[in-house]
Order: sequence, then C-alpha cells, then structure tokens
Amino acid sequence: MNFRFEEAIQLLARTPASLEMFLSGLPEGWIHCNEGEGTWNAEEVIAHLIEAEISNWIPRIETLLREGESRPFPPFDRFAHLDTSADTTLEQKLAAFKEIRRSNLEKLKDLVNNDKDLDLRGTHPEFGSVTLRELLSTWVVHDLTHISQITRVMAERYRQDVGPWQQYLSILKVRK
Amino acid sequence: MNFRFEEAIQLLARTPASLEMFLSGLPEGWIHCNEGEGTWNAEEVIAHLIEAEISNWIPRIETLLREGESRPFPPFDRFAHLDTSADTTLEQKLAAFKEIRRSNLEKLKDLVNNDKDLDLRGTHPEFGSVTLRELLSTWVVHDLTHISQITRVMAERYRQDVGPWQQYLSILKVRK
Repeated sequence: MNFRFEEAIQLLARTPASLEMFLSGLPEGWIHCNEGEGTWNAEEVIAHLIEAEISNWIPRIETLLREGESRPFPPFDRFAHLDTSADTTLEQKLAAFKEIRRSNLEKLKDLVNNDKDLDLRGTHPEFGSVTLRELLSTWVVHDLTHISQITRVMAERYRQDVGPWQQYLSILKVRK
Repeated sequence: MNFRFEEAIQLLARTPASLEMFLSGLPEGWIHCNEGEGTWNAEEVIAHLIEAEISNWIPRIETLLREGESRPFPPFDRFAHLDTSADTTLEQKLAAFKEIRRSNLEKLKDLVNNDKDLDLRGTHPEFGSVTLRELLSTWVVHDLTHISQITRVMAERYRQDVGPWQQYLSILKVRK
C-alpha cells in the first residue's frame, strides 16, 4: 500500500488550479469537442468533478465516520451534472471547483484525526465493506482519471489531422 | 480536419504552466513513481518534453520549410533525456520547459506566415511525405499524450490502495 494522507491532500489540492491553467480561455473547439454521442466534453467533466465534491466524497466520508458499516453511503448520480451545469460558463465552473475543493479539503483535515482512522470502515452500496483509505485513494485516482479523460477527449479532435503519426500516439489508441 | 493554427498554439502555450501547477512541490512519492522497470516517472516525462522542444519540433519544422521533401527530418532520440536530465531538479525542468516552449512558439509564429503554409510538405524518415499541418497536430497530441501518461503513472501508485473501486477507474485499465 502506498497511500499517505498528506500526499493525497497535496495532489487533491492541485487539481483545480491545474485544470484552470490548462482550460481557462481555450477556444470553444477544445472545450466542447467530445468523443461522440453520449460522451463528455471538457466542460462536462469539470461539472462532474464539482458534482462529486458536492454529493460524493465528503458525504461518503461523513457517513463512514458517523455510521461505520451500519448504513450504506448515500447514492451518487454520476450523470446529475448534465442536468444542472448548463447555466454557468466554463470559467465559473473552474472557479467553483477550486472553491469547493479547497473547502472540502479543510473539512477532510477536520474529519480525519490520525492515521488509525484510515482503517475505519463503511458500507458501499455495491461493494460492501470498504475502508476510509480505499475511499480517499479513490478520490485521488478519480481526479487522475478525469484529467486523463480531458486530454484524451481533446486529442480525439486531431485524430485525422496527425496523419501517419496516429500509430505512434498512444492516447489515440485507448477509448473510454 | 479540425486543425486551426491559432487554437493549436493556445493549447501548446498552456501545457508547461499547467504541468508546473500540477507537479511543482509534490512529494517524491508522486514525482518518482513509475509503472515498473523501463517506464518513465513524471520527472522523466518533463525531461522528454524538453528534449523534444530542443531536438524535434522546431528543427523538423525548419527542415520542412527550408528543404521541402528533398531532405528527411533530422533524427530524434526519444530516450536522449534519460542521459542528460539527472543534474537538474524537477522545478528547474518545469521552468526550462516553460521557457523553451515560450521561445519555440515565438519562432513558430515567425516561421508560419499563413494557412497555406500548412499544406507544405517535408519528408519523415519513416513515414515519407507529411504536411506541416500533420506535424503541428502531432506536436499538440504529443503534449496531450504525455499529460495523460503522467496521470496514468501516478494513478498506478494507488492501484492496490483503491480496493474494490479498481474495476470502475478506467485509468487503471490502460497501460502504456
């Protein structure tokens, strides 16, 4: 096991500003391209990350710490953001993600007091018993998954344009 | 075809600062983890991006514009950075990448005068005839590939730690 609480927080703290640096001010073509019907563009990925900050990570951590294994985590709708995100610009979403992540990491540091807490258990509605360590590790890898998704979606836009280089660009080989 | 010269530059211009925001100051565990024997860690990826700025993109563009198809692009050693990068810190590499990318984009804007130039052709040592549009598109997708690689390498570190969530985290399914 490689998880370290402080190292996980350091990574989680960097994601919003990094994505803001990468995406803010980019033209529509980059922000709204996707991988075809039913796939997400970069702006929709940011909306999903915000939704997960609101409804997923902290509520699940709180349930785990308060209820232990006696009560499953609250449900999380992975598509909820598609209904609620139309009214804000990308820049507003990036700012909102930065703010809620900052505030959630403050909450996290208040909630988790020492390394022994990482072995505490809760109940995932599908997987059953999981540890706080597993949940926090997943929060980190979920960030990495979606940064990777954004780059893959954007690369897809130039699939034809790269011509014969396509065979050497590994990002064009994987699909969601 | 989706390539637009200005849009490509806007993306290329953002990569170094985004990676600096993401990686700078992270603990060793994140910077030096890799995917096993013979794979690159995040710092080695940055070194490779610098090496490509020095020896790949601009030299190839200059050869294409100066020589047309009469002379193949200069060779590029994709592993050269592994010999030359040991003497600098990650922070120095990130700063060097930012500076050389800035300077290379200035050169690029001087070299390419109008959209008709994008159809000019050069000779790739392996692929044969390629256009400037294909070469510039590849520069962009190469950035996206390596951002994605960095997130994948870092996610690998928590492969075991996420427990049962592993099956739902797509980044843990793809390998280089």
